[in-house]
Amino acid sequence: MSAHARGLAGVPATQSSISSIDGEKGILAYRGYPIDVLTAHSHYEETALLLLEGELPAAQALPAFDAELRANRALKPGVIELMRALPRDGHPMHMLQSVVASLGMFYPDEISQPTSTRTYADADYVRIMAIKIMARMPLLAAYWERLRRGEKLIEPRADLDFAANFLYMLTGQEPEPFMARLMDACLILHAEHTINASTFAAMVTGSTLANPYSVISAAIGALSGPLHGGANQRVLGMLDEIGSPAKVKDWLDKKLAAKEIIWGMGHREYKVKDPRAVVLHGLIEKLVAHRGGKIGHYYDIARALEEAAKERLAAKGVYPNVDFYSGILYHELGIPADQFTALFAVARSAGWLAHWTEQIADNRIFRPTQVYTGEALREYLPLRDR
Amino acid sequence: MSAHARGLAGVPATQSSISSIDGEKGILAYRGYPIDVLTAHSHYEETALLLLEGELPAAQALPAFDAELRANRALKPGVIELMRALPRDGHPMHMLQSVVASLGMFYPDEISQPTSTRTYADADYVRIMAIKIMARMPLLAAYWERLRRGEKLIEPRADLDFAANFLYMLTGQEPEPFMARLMDACLILHAEHTINASTFAAMVTGSTLANPYSVISAAIGALSGPLHGGANQRVLGMLDEIGSPAKVKDWLDKKLAAKEIIWGMGHREYKVKDPRAVVLHGLIEKLVAHRGGKIGHYYDIARALEEAAKERLAAKGVYPNVDFYSGILYHELGIPADQFTALFAVARSAGWLAHWTEQIADNRIFRPTQVYTGEALREYLPLRDR
Repeated sequence: MSAHARGLAGVPATQSSISSIDGEKGILAYRGYPIDVLTAHSHYEETALLLLEGELPAAQALPAFDAELRANRALKPGVIELMRALPRDGHPMHMLQSVVASLGMFYPDEISQPTSTRTYADADYVRIMAIKIMARMPLLAAYWERLRRGEKLIEPRADLDFAANFLYMLTGQEPEPFMARLMDACLILHAEHTINASTFAAMVTGSTLANPYSVISAAIGALSGPLHGGANQRVLGMLDEIGSPAKVKDWLDKKLAAKEIIWGMGHREYKVKDPRAVVLHGLIEKLVAHRGGKIGHYYDIARALEEAAKERLAAKGVYPNVDFYSGILYHELGIPADQFTALFAVARSAGWLAHWTEQIADNRIFRPTQVYTGEALREYLPLRDR
Repeated sequence: MSAHARGLAGVPATQSSISSIDGEKGILAYRGYPIDVLTAHSHYEETALLLLEGELPAAQALPAFDAELRANRALKPGVIELMRALPRDGHPMHMLQSVVASLGMFYPDEISQPTSTRTYADADYVRIMAIKIMARMPLLAAYWERLRRGEKLIEPRADLDFAANFLYMLTGQEPEPFMARLMDACLILHAEHTINASTFAAMVTGSTLANPYSVISAAIGALSGPLHGGANQRVLGMLDEIGSPAKVKDWLDKKLAAKEIIWGMGHREYKVKDPRAVVLHGLIEKLVAHRGGKIGHYYDIARALEEAAKERLAAKGVYPNVDFYSGILYHELGIPADQFTALFAVARSAGWLAHWTEQIADNRIFRPTQVYTGEALREYLPLRDR
């Protein structure tokens, strides 16, 4: 028995009005709008604005926000030179964490620091920084993809929306509208998820009044961990390891007997199937229909695994989570597996920035206590007497 | 009234045996040893080993640890090339956050990730990573100082201890032993301080099983904030603003009336003078004696400010904290003001790594809850109807 809640499970760390989860019913809502509704009717730009500002934008506000996002699709040449100095075989998440942290050096005017909490929580400042960071994150991920392949960089296109431009810059081809829409839905699904570890890292870092690049870089670091965003990349590796639908049951029984992690399964917040996995599953079915039934073998293995897992794990409340199907969809969009978590980071930047905005508007620096289990005060013995 | 503790004040977030604070008596102890004793009798290498492993090292363990630290005083040339690609007028803390995050790309063998918590908490792995990170951090700060001045890099010297080598690489001159000893004491004083925001950011990031470079980078981001480590740089700016001891009282009364932050004053954990400020104050007095009474004007202003603040703020439990005198001492050591927080980060890496070790040895990912204050589920209205 310990006197603290490990991982702060069940302990409220903040007040927040950004998103809510009903784990029994399997509902995730942003500002009151369930994600299945948003993926069906909204798009990423509108959803980001909803997360940042609290309401669906009025007719005139959305084009203005969208135009600002497009206008900020640019990076100083020095940032790209910095990226060229990074080892090409490095992981995109480590590139992102590193390069985002450097942006305060490249754009010093954007981080001129305040002398008090009040001046920092200036709404205009926070708003424009959120736009700049959201606009630049996909450029970093996409440029990195081209740089590491030794291919020519693809300049952003202001005539494409957020999802289509990102996919275009990543793959070099303007996506067909159906695929861009899938990408857009994935971005919406990953945009926000209450106080998870990366969002919490952003809040803790932001509470020191660190600049927003430092804040988002810290969140990227947390998201890179295999127990958090890093899991989606691992799902594909797991499906490769299984090899075929026929081998699923034996493989799963062995893993469960050895108490090893089944990637993409289970979530502390949900007692039912993660609503994001429900939407993603539906999107893959749409893709299968769009392609006249043709899709890679990952999907067959994943469905068999979901079925086998249902028999063995549903009683424990363990179902597919968002990572289970997202990798399969990204794979079909032509994105390499080690970029999946970077895509997650690009999408989640909206949620991180919304929480950063909320944190600094009513800030107190995070300093929890500890249950001290160490030595009482004791005498120092010189080295010769030990 | 809110249903959560803002900043998690008073809420235990972990069990820990690394350090303890007695805020009433003004005692900070690492593993049971008060910091005034450690600064008087220990040195940074020994204190770091104490923090990491829990006990003062036996006679043979210390030289082995020290030798490993010295042997790891090296960086791949690519890391220095990366630093050259960063804008020279950028802040050292942003450089550190960025470059430390990149180290996993330069040293991929050091971050090969685990498939379960158990394999990751391998004691040998954790131990060697702590040594590598502690050995490399001062190189980054010192190389940056030379690079941004356009001066030749100074290679580390294996014949100098941690503090002397760091000061040598920063300033280009082998320090006299008295000054190296002051630096060593500063490193000890900044090595650890229970669950502050940067340590907590390291724990939250580490709890996702992110690699240790990502973890330490996140902690650096949190420390960079002006409400945390960034304050020590601001104290000198504040003393400049005051200008002379005679102007202290008027300046202070105006600031207090405007409810502005007095940098280097007050700490949530202490009801008396921060024990680190007590030791630092004593070190400055030693320096004054060593120099036959000569010291820069900052110290005179700071003493006057401490006196004036005592009359006005002591009843509220507001006294000088660690940042109040550290900047003055660093200034006398010849270190530029914007490097002060980077020095803090170099010293604190021992504590961060100790907490990272503790976190992953008994890990649960951080996921606190929130008090949801937002909208209930609501209907989506198409743009044309808003």
